[in-house]
Amino acid sequence: MTPADLALANALADAAGNAIRPLFRGEWNHERKSDASPVTGADRAAEAAMRAIIEERCPDDGIIGEEYGTRNEGAGRQWVLDPIDGTISFMAGRPIFGTLIALLQDGWPVLGVIDQPIAGERWAARIGEGTTLNGLPIRTRPCKELSDATLASSGPQYFTDDQGAAFMSLAAQTSQIVVWGGDCYNYGLLASGHLDMVCEAGLKLYDYAALVPIVEGAGGMMSDWQGNPLDANSDGTVLALGDPARLEGVLEAMG
Amino acid sequence: MTPADLALANALADAAGNAIRPLFRGEWNHERKSDASPVTGADRAAEAAMRAIIEERCPDDGIIGEEYGTRNEGAGRQWVLDPIDGTISFMAGRPIFGTLIALLQDGWPVLGVIDQPIAGERWAARIGEGTTLNGLPIRTRPCKELSDATLASSGPQYFTDDQGAAFMSLAAQTSQIVVWGGDCYNYGLLASGHLDMVCEAGLKLYDYAALVPIVEGAGGMMSDWQGNPLDANSDGTVLALGDPARLEGVLEAMG
Repeated sequence: MTPADLALANALADAAGNAIRPLFRGEWNHERKSDASPVTGADRAAEAAMRAIIEERCPDDGIIGEEYGTRNEGAGRQWVLDPIDGTISFMAGRPIFGTLIALLQDGWPVLGVIDQPIAGERWAARIGEGTTLNGLPIRTRPCKELSDATLASSGPQYFTDDQGAAFMSLAAQTSQIVVWGGDCYNYGLLASGHLDMVCEAGLKLYDYAALVPIVEGAGGMMSDWQGNPLDANSDGTVLALGDPARLEGVLEAMG
Repeated sequence: MTPADLALANALADAAGNAIRPLFRGEWNHERKSDASPVTGADRAAEAAMRAIIEERCPDDGIIGEEYGTRNEGAGRQWVLDPIDGTISFMAGRPIFGTLIALLQDGWPVLGVIDQPIAGERWAARIGEGTTLNGLPIRTRPCKELSDATLASSGPQYFTDDQGAAFMSLAAQTSQIVVWGGDCYNYGLLASGHLDMVCEAGLKLYDYAALVPIVEGAGGMMSDWQGNPLDANSDGTVLALGDPARLEGVLEAMG
């Protein structure tokens, strides 16, 4: 990874935002994918715009995209793209979706961007450096007790019954202030110190790869629901903690 | 109600926004009210700023405020104020909370404002006139079949078990695209034609009074879960439909 990679990631986010903004609260049609999740022309246009830039500037890099699949499978460097994480928020006109861009080096996320093109907010991080929001350094906040924690999750429908029960038993031990909806935007807010925990399940690589450098570069931690680091083979359960000292308590609460 | 009332409501929203903006993603403490819901200094400062204006300009009007209670109980004209609807979103740094202002005439909402001071979005309506977003007319969208509907709700924790079951049976007959979180902002998006239905419970007068003129002035309808119009004595169950023709199907689905 070189400093040029962050410049490239910024160019990708710019291109995605330019594709998305004219379609926000405008005219688009949606279809259902094989997993029943919706996809719009904005998702496709934004991913196509990003892929074109990578294919031109770094033709040997791999691409793993939510909408258009994999290119150069097995490349050491792989760009993981989710053009609109939070398509349902986008469709409803809520400015809390995001474009996710990650660079994997040998399978591990080393660079991440969350871009919110309507509010004009961009979280970015490279491994080993701090996380920024619109270029300014940010930090997670301390959370002294689990009972102080504000917890977020995108929606109860993403949990199996067992996962829902584990989430509820965690929620019961937090401040019981639960923030619903929000997708990737919640992880940006956690990195900025406005939320303490995000707990989700059913995420795919393109949903979480960009989040890891952002949360960890701000002083937080991410893992699966067993406390294992996230990589390309994770099971889709995701925990993000602003204060890593709360991990043991969270895992215990989730049983 | 006179045209001056809308000017007054706009002045109230301006004052609330000026009190809230400096505290967004900044320093505040929160406390719990008797119903365990959180309240911050921003809620209190915004309501105090609005009350001061009403007390100066319309000293005989009544006020029903979420934070500071009732003034001139029994007045024919009553201002209903919720300085921050969506305090949890405010606390988490999400720009999808709102200041709610309603004017009741003999108990019926005749004017409503939803103001989102961070995004700079203001929905406003006076009974008998159309609804506007930042001064421009808006309309709800048609929803030809219940199975096309996008449904929103602030969070599962606001439902009793029975209410949750009724919501889930409604959700199962919609498009199954459920938007979680959002509070009053969802009703603005419904009025603007980006969402089809909102279904909630446990709302208080100051949560829904402002929403009625906004949704109905844009062509939609609001009722309780039995289809009755909302007034000061409603039971806290709330339905908002962008397309009133779907009411019968919704009530049937909720069984």
